[in-house]
Amino acid sequence: MKNILIIGAGRSASACINYCLNHAAENGGFVTVADANPEQAQKRINNHPNGRSAWLDVNKSNDRKDLISRHDIVVSLLPAHLHLLVATDCIKYQKHLVTASYVSKEMYRLGDEARNASLIFMGEMGLDPGIDHMSAMKLLDNIRDKGGNITAFRSYAGGLIAPESDDNPWHYKFTWNPRNVVLAGQGTAQYMENGKYKYIPYSRLFKEHHSVDVPGMGPYDAYANRDSLLYREIYGVEGIPNILRATLRFPGFCDAWNALVQIGLTDGSYPIHDADKITYHEWMNAYLPAGNGSVKERMADFLGEKIDSDVMNKLEWLGLFRKKRINMKQATPALILEHLLLDKWKLSPKDKDMIIMQHEIEYELDNQKKKVVSSMVMKGKDENDTAMSRLVGLPMGIFVKLIIDGKITTTGVNIPVMKEVYDPVLEELEKYGVVFKEYETEMS
Amino acid sequence: MKNILIIGAGRSASACINYCLNHAAENGGFVTVADANPEQAQKRINNHPNGRSAWLDVNKSNDRKDLISRHDIVVSLLPAHLHLLVATDCIKYQKHLVTASYVSKEMYRLGDEARNASLIFMGEMGLDPGIDHMSAMKLLDNIRDKGGNITAFRSYAGGLIAPESDDNPWHYKFTWNPRNVVLAGQGTAQYMENGKYKYIPYSRLFKEHHSVDVPGMGPYDAYANRDSLLYREIYGVEGIPNILRATLRFPGFCDAWNALVQIGLTDGSYPIHDADKITYHEWMNAYLPAGNGSVKERMADFLGEKIDSDVMNKLEWLGLFRKKRINMKQATPALILEHLLLDKWKLSPKDKDMIIMQHEIEYELDNQKKKVVSSMVMKGKDENDTAMSRLVGLPMGIFVKLIIDGKITTTGVNIPVMKEVYDPVLEELEKYGVVFKEYETEMS
Repeated sequence: MKNILIIGAGRSASACINYCLNHAAENGGFVTVADANPEQAQKRINNHPNGRSAWLDVNKSNDRKDLISRHDIVVSLLPAHLHLLVATDCIKYQKHLVTASYVSKEMYRLGDEARNASLIFMGEMGLDPGIDHMSAMKLLDNIRDKGGNITAFRSYAGGLIAPESDDNPWHYKFTWNPRNVVLAGQGTAQYMENGKYKYIPYSRLFKEHHSVDVPGMGPYDAYANRDSLLYREIYGVEGIPNILRATLRFPGFCDAWNALVQIGLTDGSYPIHDADKITYHEWMNAYLPAGNGSVKERMADFLGEKIDSDVMNKLEWLGLFRKKRINMKQATPALILEHLLLDKWKLSPKDKDMIIMQHEIEYELDNQKKKVVSSMVMKGKDENDTAMSRLVGLPMGIFVKLIIDGKITTTGVNIPVMKEVYDPVLEELEKYGVVFKEYETEMS
Repeated sequence: MKNILIIGAGRSASACINYCLNHAAENGGFVTVADANPEQAQKRINNHPNGRSAWLDVNKSNDRKDLISRHDIVVSLLPAHLHLLVATDCIKYQKHLVTASYVSKEMYRLGDEARNASLIFMGEMGLDPGIDHMSAMKLLDNIRDKGGNITAFRSYAGGLIAPESDDNPWHYKFTWNPRNVVLAGQGTAQYMENGKYKYIPYSRLFKEHHSVDVPGMGPYDAYANRDSLLYREIYGVEGIPNILRATLRFPGFCDAWNALVQIGLTDGSYPIHDADKITYHEWMNAYLPAGNGSVKERMADFLGEKIDSDVMNKLEWLGLFRKKRINMKQATPALILEHLLLDKWKLSPKDKDMIIMQHEIEYELDNQKKKVVSSMVMKGKDENDTAMSRLVGLPMGIFVKLIIDGKITTTGVNIPVMKEVYDPVLEELEKYGVVFKEYETEMS
């Protein structure tokens, strides 16, 4: 039970691969890294004596099955829609499976088969989803064990730029999938407040942000996630009157992003005419009715902003009023915006990213209302060794080790909400600097 | 060539059926009305000596083919997605086809086959689309024939309630598909102004309405349609710098509808929790953050309205602040709103509806800028005999007559933009009160 197959050697694979290689060096065993790009796989192995690389086109069924059948545990770092191919083979050849992706309905349907074969298929074993589940469940279970009655659960997370690398007016750079950042929040956010369901449509999501204080770091903007109600059952908090999951950004970001939403720049549903011929300046003009004044003046007017407001300065900094060609063919507004931001929000080689995660739980115990706030802040080292890639990859590596060590009795398709998983994973993560600081206050 | 098959005997079929029956009575021939509900078909025929009814489940291929093969011209009043079934049979049995629906890509692909068999498949032969195409093309062709250079084409249409039947603060009632009214405008409106493309996202479509004067009727609100650029080629106005198609509503409607959009009530993409248990009052509360004041007060505050403003009075009149149960299961906001409006905006038996259509064309001739405005206003008789159903049905009936009379040389899949179609159809429509009044001004 010591042969690990890691499928996918992309940029975010290093932390998981290195953790598994180190463990193999100390305890025996082999780690195979398979990728459609064999040089990339070889680079990740970096001549480690316990590692080997393999060329794999995951759509080639025989190659995939052959490789999976010769290992004990499979880690899939593939795009989410490809996990099911791997999972089906894992059922057939009786292998454990670990991923960092959201568990799909199709994947959950394999639950009985996995359980009958005493296999563990662990999904959502990254940062968010992953560390959020584990750290939240540890807090919730602790309070419930003490006999506390939980009345509010609010959970915040943000992938940000560290203050020392923050050199632009948006106070933001891309540390993860740019497309997801541009399309974030589309749909309707749902949460629960004072026992009532609440809805925020996308068109006012970034306007209706609220402020969250992160101890030692200051205030951040938070906007509600679409899915606050999603984990109510699995967290065991079905009945609680307050539940919210939200995303953190530096103050000022949400108001400026709201301007992009109001103009219409995050829409991915139709192409802009002549996007290969017009300038950003002309593009902005296309959203404004004809009138007097410059495009920038009319835009400020439309947005209800002063011409030199923070929001207008952020738009100006992006180059939205420049007479420079867009030079893209048949592109949607969202794609043009993504392309522009990729250039403006690119990490420099020495930039450090920063992850913030914070849970706020209110509960009643012995007729006293209490609030516990648990926060984790972690910074990366540079453009390549980001906190983001570490925190996505490490939990999977650690969980693989737990399987090898025989510490896992759970079977079937799961996400990491059980004590036998979150306790040892969070303990091991602390050695890598992932430390949640808690403070508790009594509420009047 | 005198046997007509009309498939579909729904509410809007009368005008077309009656026109065809009258023509058959004068000129010989037979009209068969086929429907899944044979009593309904029989009712429409009303014992007319030249009519007969038939029972038809249109999905039963043999029955459908049998019926089609025994007629000369087919009129399909089926839901739009079913026309293709009928069209394929019409190719096989060499029958002409007429519909009032938008012509789909799949339908256009039958063009060569229809042309090779000397058949005419005429789509968009109703009111909008239909009379809009014909009346616009007549104006445009006239100006071009004179040698005029067209610089602006703006076209407006609205299905409204006649002033004498207008007894609610919205000045609107349903005279056509309620679902389409609730979902109208979703997406991004595109049009052209001063040679530049313009875009209005849905979230500000009803806010950015403009006023249009209809001669003899007064001002109306107009909001841009999604598809202003769609007919540029087929109208032969590709190069013109100004093109807009828009929908007319009584003044004040758009501002109030904008409030529904901003709250989030026109969203059909997710279900409201506990919609079977909560009241409209609680539903509105679900869109507002917690705060002081009544739901109505907080809503006014959120919308930036005074508590007794016209917009707030319209929302109040709808009953959105009433503590009355919604009583729907698993319903989306759009569905709940539609259900509420169906009750509030229902035509009374003696209510008259009103259709307004207006084209505004600017052109240059002999170094003089001119503007022609052409308007048509038509009112219905009562709840059943609406102007809407007449104007949708009559053009199809008239076109069937033109085919029988051998007046149509066009073949293939078409929409009514050619002179040999629009001239006689518009002339015949005038006998039914469909009169466009034109006035022309010279612009400085």
